[in-house]
Amino acid sequence: MDLGVLGEFGFIERLQRRFSSPPDLDLKSAVSLGIGDDAAAVIPSPNKYSLLTTDSLVEGIHFTRAFSSFHQVGFKALAVNLSDIAAMGGVARFFLVSLGLPKDLSLRDLDQLYRGLAKGMQEFGLALVGGNTSATTGPFFITITLLGEVDKDVMLRRDGAKPGDALFVTGTLGDAAAGLEILKKGLALGGRSSLIRRQLRPKARLREGRLLAEAHIPSAMMDVSDGLTADLTHILKQSGLGAELDLPQIPLSAALKCYVKKYAPEKDPLDYALYGGEDYELLFSVPEKNIQKLEALIQSGEIQACRIGTMCPQKKGLIAKEADGRTRKIHPRGHDHFKSERSCGKNKVASG
Amino acid sequence: MDLGVLGEFGFIERLQRRFSSPPDLDLKSAVSLGIGDDAAAVIPSPNKYSLLTTDSLVEGIHFTRAFSSFHQVGFKALAVNLSDIAAMGGVARFFLVSLGLPKDLSLRDLDQLYRGLAKGMQEFGLALVGGNTSATTGPFFITITLLGEVDKDVMLRRDGAKPGDALFVTGTLGDAAAGLEILKKGLALGGRSSLIRRQLRPKARLREGRLLAEAHIPSAMMDVSDGLTADLTHILKQSGLGAELDLPQIPLSAALKCYVKKYAPEKDPLDYALYGGEDYELLFSVPEKNIQKLEALIQSGEIQACRIGTMCPQKKGLIAKEADGRTRKIHPRGHDHFKSERSCGKNKVASG
Repeated sequence: MDLGVLGEFGFIERLQRRFSSPPDLDLKSAVSLGIGDDAAAVIPSPNKYSLLTTDSLVEGIHFTRAFSSFHQVGFKALAVNLSDIAAMGGVARFFLVSLGLPKDLSLRDLDQLYRGLAKGMQEFGLALVGGNTSATTGPFFITITLLGEVDKDVMLRRDGAKPGDALFVTGTLGDAAAGLEILKKGLALGGRSSLIRRQLRPKARLREGRLLAEAHIPSAMMDVSDGLTADLTHILKQSGLGAELDLPQIPLSAALKCYVKKYAPEKDPLDYALYGGEDYELLFSVPEKNIQKLEALIQSGEIQACRIGTMCPQKKGLIAKEADGRTRKIHPRGHDHFKSERSCGKNKVASG
Repeated sequence: MDLGVLGEFGFIERLQRRFSSPPDLDLKSAVSLGIGDDAAAVIPSPNKYSLLTTDSLVEGIHFTRAFSSFHQVGFKALAVNLSDIAAMGGVARFFLVSLGLPKDLSLRDLDQLYRGLAKGMQEFGLALVGGNTSATTGPFFITITLLGEVDKDVMLRRDGAKPGDALFVTGTLGDAAAGLEILKKGLALGGRSSLIRRQLRPKARLREGRLLAEAHIPSAMMDVSDGLTADLTHILKQSGLGAELDLPQIPLSAALKCYVKKYAPEKDPLDYALYGGEDYELLFSVPEKNIQKLEALIQSGEIQACRIGTMCPQKKGLIAKEADGRTRKIHPRGHDHFKSERSCGKNKVASG
């Protein structure tokens, strides 16, 4: 069926049928009024902050149909927002979806998109409570706004780091940028590559963010969406600090090292981590007194995280320490996704 | 300065400077963390519903630069969302702005846009708490998500109308559609026309929505964004009813009647009201027992509203009663804005 034939009523009813019942009963009782009225009405938990974040994916900028299915686009659009809630130590609860629909988008594409959203909803226990669709003469876009919540004494900000705090990051960095490169090069690694998977189907670290925050371990936290150096600069700026990055400690996956060795031997695998974006790992500073608590979590397998540096006074700036102990100034730089000379969004930093 | 030169940091700092202090002190204390972190953190009021709504304006679909300044686009983007909160009887509090920026957009355009937003913020007492910007290869778009709140026993939905309830509408209908027609025809009425003003600078009926809801007058309410017949159909469907519209009672402005007489004599002014969109008036049903209370508000000048019909059983459908008492079936139809054969959003209903 064509979208025009289905119309607004039909489309909204379709969504209502599919999304009217959040899987989780607590969540269900928190949605007083979902899709289909002028606004949604939800019940915030008492004594918590409501967390709000919004992020868009635009066709031709953040994805292309050649590389991504609409299922993947839906899932990723949710993931990039979830990652922001993770970085606050919060729980994600409700979201709204705003779509710009070009004429060549079929109902099948849209169903795929909503399947991808549904997958993320299920995985992370969310309720879709509203949205909006509009025609556009340009490329497809999806804007998601996510509402989460967090205990007031648990929330983590970017501005809490202190000199001497250790700097940690979850997981591995640089994979998503390598995955994008593989797709662009058209290398026949197909769906088998874990790097491509990290690019197309990022995983928001909600569990880890919450675990760290509730254990009161970090002094500051954010997610790595634009590349390590670009994002670290936010924490530095907002906490009024500098930092020394311990380059050999930056966690690189075996898949990344293997890929660079074989397909991009002229490059340094570290550069993918320092300047590549979209890993959606958590970057956080830890006061000395909390390191033992964190190491216990790491050793018990509750969380995968590496110490990659130390916060220092602002005047030192951002410094990289090589394996041989030598240090050099480092210039923060984000990734450029699908060509765009001007890019100034959360995911699209041209000039840091 | 160019946007690319300003970059993400510069842009966000600019916004922080301009929007970090909500005018209202209560609101200020409710924003724990505003622009510049991974997510915003706000404090919901106890025992209230949080209201959530989102709406986009897309260049070439909802506005063109030939007719609208970016100041107007910013103000209107906020107004169309505010109108949804008004329709719930709520108070608007926080919002997020997601932008798609084409290359030809200048920093000056963007400043204008934010001035329009700031104007709306001031007028309605809102706090901007976050957002996102992205490049786009297509037309400019702005998506706003608005968070409001409402007392639990005050909130109005679309599904509460009962047979016999009277149907009322605030203000006058059809003006915005006529305003758009004037702009499209290029008639030299300039900024003087109140009709053009209703198209480019709609006024959300927040005060009226709250007044009606807190006085517990309506049984159901929604805003008129797609045209009277299209929007009334939502209430009818969700309340399981039909309605009889009293055509001579539908409120038309003197400006609209005068315009049609002079510039579009082949048309019926009523058609602008029945099928034209973007008036952002409130449409609400009132049980017999509350009509006196409403009439007192109307007579005291607290609210401008007209009785335009009566709710009836579903099987009657949507019926129009002419001045001579004769009735006819009416087919709901929304407005088509700047041509788009496919339109399926809140503002863009092709097939009701």
